[in-house]
Amino acid sequence: MARYLDDFTVGDSFESAGYTIGLEESLAFARSYDPQPFHLDAEAAQRSVFRGLTCSGWQTAAITMRLTVQAGMLEETGIVGTGIDDLRWLAPVKPGDTLHVRGEVIEKLRPANGRRGTLRVRLHTFNQDGTIVMSQIANVALPIPS
Amino acid sequence: MARYLDDFTVGDSFESAGYTIGLEESLAFARSYDPQPFHLDAEAAQRSVFRGLTCSGWQTAAITMRLTVQAGMLEETGIVGTGIDDLRWLAPVKPGDTLHVRGEVIEKLRPANGRRGTLRVRLHTFNQDGTIVMSQIANVALPIPS
Repeated sequence: MARYLDDFTVGDSFESAGYTIGLEESLAFARSYDPQPFHLDAEAAQRSVFRGLTCSGWQTAAITMRLTVQAGMLEETGIVGTGIDDLRWLAPVKPGDTLHVRGEVIEKLRPANGRRGTLRVRLHTFNQDGTIVMSQIANVALPIPS
Repeated sequence: MARYLDDFTVGDSFESAGYTIGLEESLAFARSYDPQPFHLDAEAAQRSVFRGLTCSGWQTAAITMRLTVQAGMLEETGIVGTGIDDLRWLAPVKPGDTLHVRGEVIEKLRPANGRRGTLRVRLHTFNQDGTIVMSQIANVALPIPS
């Protein structure tokens, strides 16, 4: 089913499933997109500020997208992000961690005219201990029926 | 060589190498992290707002990280991002596009005390036509010598 701006109300929320990041997946992402020693080499990581191997923050962001897509809040309309505000990496994510996402609509922006509005959704990504590892506000384009 | 907050001045800049996103890499990223029809299925993509297959915006962000790491501005200190402000996806990225990044230091934040400051770096990601496809401000932690 297609979803429109007015199908949502400030305060609407969702909770995603969980996703466990494997060590191989973490290393593969870092090799492709964030080739730094504290993501790739256990010994170098021990000497870094992280005191051990960590996943790329961009992989945490990408997994957050996967979990948000799969939560299906926008159904067939799909998630067309126009931008992200105030993204913060608040705690390290380590290979083997299990992440899940909680999202909440915090604002609806309706243009004076035009067929697309913006839903602003606060996303918190948690690890298995309930620690928030990443927060952000996603701006998502949604159609307005003509 | 390790790099410290005061090794940088507002206005310092870098230009990255280029990176071409292959179709297979685009599909693999979307399958893992952004499984939506307009990233995965050419026919569905034709019917979407993008009018053709596009890469996940999170892959554009990840490639921007790769190019920034490889540009080497922070040398052995490494890039420890604490957060991103004002990330905007400004134009679609399609499989086969070649991206490059331009970065410029726009602000230095020095804590009243403490051994880490923040370098704020504006990043623009361009395609092969010189169109800005993504902009963001990266907040990067940098040590202050004691």
